[in-house]
Amino acid sequence: MELETRYEAEPGSVRPGGRTARVRAAVLRAAEDVLAEQGFAHLDLADVARRAAVGKTTVYRRWGTVANLVADLLADMAEQSVPRTETGSLLGDLTANARLVQRTLTDPRQVALFKAVIAAATWDTRTAQALRRFYDIRVNEWAPCVQQAIDRTEIPPDTDPREVIRAVSAPLYYRLLISGEVLDQAAADRAAAAAVAGARAGVYRRDGDRGSA
Amino acid sequence: MELETRYEAEPGSVRPGGRTARVRAAVLRAAEDVLAEQGFAHLDLADVARRAAVGKTTVYRRWGTVANLVADLLADMAEQSVPRTETGSLLGDLTANARLVQRTLTDPRQVALFKAVIAAATWDTRTAQALRRFYDIRVNEWAPCVQQAIDRTEIPPDTDPREVIRAVSAPLYYRLLISGEVLDQAAADRAAAAAVAGARAGVYRRDGDRGSA
Repeated sequence: MELETRYEAEPGSVRPGGRTARVRAAVLRAAEDVLAEQGFAHLDLADVARRAAVGKTTVYRRWGTVANLVADLLADMAEQSVPRTETGSLLGDLTANARLVQRTLTDPRQVALFKAVIAAATWDTRTAQALRRFYDIRVNEWAPCVQQAIDRTEIPPDTDPREVIRAVSAPLYYRLLISGEVLDQAAADRAAAAAVAGARAGVYRRDGDRGSA
Repeated sequence: MELETRYEAEPGSVRPGGRTARVRAAVLRAAEDVLAEQGFAHLDLADVARRAAVGKTTVYRRWGTVANLVADLLADMAEQSVPRTETGSLLGDLTANARLVQRTLTDPRQVALFKAVIAAATWDTRTAQALRRFYDIRVNEWAPCVQQAIDRTEIPPDTDPREVIRAVSAPLYYRLLISGEVLDQAAADRAAAAAVAGARAGVYRRDGDRGSA
């Protein structure tokens, strides 16, 4: 019945899913606009439908709640995230990653969006889960560069790749959300260098956790 | 006139400032309660006055706005923050710092308070400034342990002490706000070890910033 509704609205649609994909893109774009301009508290399905020029019923049927809409927005952002750069060294790869995070967090539209979602995640469990899934996908995208560094014997074999990737992002988010210091390329390069130094020193070894437990 | 109002309400007050200090303590405690239980959006001066059993006029005259009240709450928290531990080694000192941050961010009342204030800081400039001042005071309290490590020649002489202290906190706040991973003592110890590894490798040298600029 849901499929029928989607297709009957635009019978001339070239391929199945074409209209569905366009509706999703328009709705997510409108949701991004509201989040970036006004914040999570102003996100409202009827308003998003109006901005996206999509039927309110369609939006309510497909997403149902603001939390679902934000979760889908984050899933879409994760799908579209840039594939990782391969430079041949751990420092080079992590610097590329850090600069990507730094550019995202200094883009006016994206930073407004991230701030709104991170703030909402502090009080809304569904949004917190969606945020974690988003970062899980990004961490999984970049973790192989740490495994390659292990294979090149740059860092200890029992290093936890995901923990190294998270270590690159942490100081950049700290600047954004807590200390308010400038988020420039030097900060990105320092974050990457710190993660490499920690990895070389064995700080991110899985054994480290077990040993101190 | 303000002084008159404060003192005339309780003429038997032993020392000047006694009532003022008690009023402040009661109001800040009530503000903490609202933030921890309901979040920043529910903070209202009249409600805080009622909870604190303090005259509404006093609260409006002294604090005026919710932003001022939150700024004063953060100033009070900074005044009361625990003095740093001195262990004789950089790893020992930073581990003590990391565990203090970790305990704060896992205390149910304090974590609710911090999340509410950090979320509000994403959209409210005054709260963001107050939050930065709070962390400035905490960073200043702990930075001397890095200077002592420089004096002991544990780390390069041009290391930026404040940057090292921030590096200890960053992964813990990242877990709290972004990745949602468990914030246990092992995470604290790893954050301290990573900051030490970075400092030893020269990542937090002031020259590093200048060199890459």
